[in-house]
Amino acid sequence: MEDLLESSSSWLSDDDLRSARERVPMVYVNAVPVRTNDDGEIREVGLLLRGMPDGTISRAIVTGRVLYGERIRAALLRHIEKDLGAVALPRVPVILTPFTVVEYFPDPSVTGFHDPRQHAVSLAFIVPVAGDCAPSQDSLDLIWVTPEQAASDQMQAEMTGGQGRLVRLALAAGARLP
Amino acid sequence: MEDLLESSSSWLSDDDLRSARERVPMVYVNAVPVRTNDDGEIREVGLLLRGMPDGTISRAIVTGRVLYGERIRAALLRHIEKDLGAVALPRVPVILTPFTVVEYFPDPSVTGFHDPRQHAVSLAFIVPVAGDCAPSQDSLDLIWVTPEQAASDQMQAEMTGGQGRLVRLALAAGARLP
Amino acid sequence: MEDLLESSSSWLSDDDLRSARERVPMVYVNAVPVRTNDDGEIREVGLLLRGMPDGTISRAIVTGRVLYGERIRAALLRHIEKDLGAVALPRVPVILTPFTVVEYFPDPSVTGFHDPRQHAVSLAFIVPVAGDCAPSQDSLDLIWVTPEQAASDQMQAEMTGGQGRLVRLALAAGARLP
Amino acid sequence: MEDLLESSSSWLSDDDLRSARERVPMVYVNAVPVRTNDDGEIREVGLLLRGMPDGTISRAIVTGRVLYGERIRAALLRHIEKDLGAVALPRVPVILTPFTVVEYFPDPSVTGFHDPRQHAVSLAFIVPVAGDCAPSQDSLDLIWVTPEQAASDQMQAEMTGGQGRLVRLALAAGARLP
Repeated sequence: MEDLLESSSSWLSDDDLRSARERVPMVYVNAVPVRTNDDGEIREVGLLLRGMPDGTISRAIVTGRVLYGERIRAALLRHIEKDLGAVALPRVPVILTPFTVVEYFPDPSVTGFHDPRQHAVSLAFIVPVAGDCAPSQDSLDLIWVTPEQAASDQMQAEMTGGQGRLVRLALAAGARLP
Repeated sequence: MEDLLESSSSWLSDDDLRSARERVPMVYVNAVPVRTNDDGEIREVGLLLRGMPDGTISRAIVTGRVLYGERIRAALLRHIEKDLGAVALPRVPVILTPFTVVEYFPDPSVTGFHDPRQHAVSLAFIVPVAGDCAPSQDSLDLIWVTPEQAASDQMQAEMTGGQGRLVRLALAAGARLP
Repeated sequence: MEDLLESSSSWLSDDDLRSARERVPMVYVNAVPVRTNDDGEIREVGLLLRGMPDGTISRAIVTGRVLYGERIRAALLRHIEKDLGAVALPRVPVILTPFTVVEYFPDPSVTGFHDPRQHAVSLAFIVPVAGDCAPSQDSLDLIWVTPEQAASDQMQAEMTGGQGRLVRLALAAGARLP
Repeated sequence: MEDLLESSSSWLSDDDLRSARERVPMVYVNAVPVRTNDDGEIREVGLLLRGMPDGTISRAIVTGRVLYGERIRAALLRHIEKDLGAVALPRVPVILTPFTVVEYFPDPSVTGFHDPRQHAVSLAFIVPVAGDCAPSQDSLDLIWVTPEQAASDQMQAEMTGGQGRLVRLALAAGARLP
């Protein structure tokens, strides 16, 4: 949910972005990075550690804004490279139907998905990565955990703004929710 | 794609909306209204006749913008009521995964889905309607056609901006593409 | 998972059905009955109480075999009527893509979805019901619970063979997993 | 739809398989092999040439039966290897929700999907392949065509039993139906 670097390098001034955020919902993408076996079944989930819009340092998945003029597939690849590095070898899904559509609101009571900065509509995908991943730019750390660990109360407590719930929805879509 | 009435009644001035449209992708919903038999299988597709953003009068499905602060389900219901009337009795899907995500661009060559006014990311749903439908507000006409007719070259020629292709993607999702 | 009545009224003798079950996977459907609000969001989940193939009396959802020559939509309607009565007014989804495909095995360790009688591949759907439901035929009871209650540890403990996990996968697909 | 080699090497005698086929629907998988660009978008569709159950030599996609005790992911991989060779490097989807469920009947008028041998319920997937593919065993030929070619009237006429329509449903799911 942190996109300081993105906003400074994108096509909008901070003022223009702030102005748009007050007027219309933003388009976002979420990517849950996973490692699979040869059968395509999820074995591990990648969780970043990063500064979040709510001011906490929390576990999180790949998140970012779709820019004006940008294709969704391109935005997915850009944010995965931004967060996991240039040699993660992501496999963007052939069918671009999100496993869920996340509605983030400044008011956490609306959907439980919370972004204090904005109303965002995020298309969420599971993205297998086959290469080497390293936390990059604004991420502090990257760990790989089993589906059981990712869904555990302990790991869920390390995620804020609904990110933990989103990980569980992803595991459910992959039939790997314990 | 026509939302003159929406923009005049929404929370943004025309200037503010124009300004946002130049900076970020807009969030939209598309609804393909259908009549089904008791088994849930599509029997008829509803097609509106309306002024389109490209200046033509064309066949089209339900389309509209998601407002700041508005839930996607609420936007779907609002636009269906706006286009089909208050007693259409729409059945919004339980699973809010769109059958496709439509990327509209001012440049028609990017995806074939064209909106001269803006870059829009639209979540497209099939919505069965059980009640009486009447074209309302900015729609001139509403017809119900079979899947075969909706996919025919003749009807496809009456749709612009990719709406014809979107109807065929909907029929495919419902396994009713001829 | 109990289909004594079905098997006695279907086109196979018990011997023939047993013989087929030893040779090929069976085709099944699962339906999670729900009540929604006007927006289509799940408010309540219907849970039956019934004798299960594993010999327990447990909470369960609608389940049944697809017969030779039978369409999937017809099998869904037939089993919903068998379990919830003739005036449940089910709304079979327009898009017949299951929210998950359940693989039941006689060995509970393979997938966690367990059927001691057979290897079954089940297409699982969420089906809103708008009418009056009553447990019928081989069901002892029907209760309606909130998504939170359905996902609770207590209710999960009342379901066997993976039915509890299947209910949570359904809630996740409807973005209603707590 | 041709599985002579499969049936001779599987766990059932021809008599037992024939007997089961007369009594219950068979569980099948279909795989539409595709090549994608780095963004995950379909660039080419792989079409086999093979003897079909209806006696014709036709273009077709990967098809085969799920054996008793076999996981769906394993059946997918087995049939892809059988038809495309051992180094096709298929990427089985993380989310095992089929893009469509195909209902094949001996009577071609029921759904348009036709298999003279049996009633089969087939889970259909799009499977990107990254390696070298070669028609193997009972396939005579393999060609790669663009989405436009695959959906063309000419290519559709070379497919029987609904295979052409299934390819178009796959292209629609990948938003690549022309």
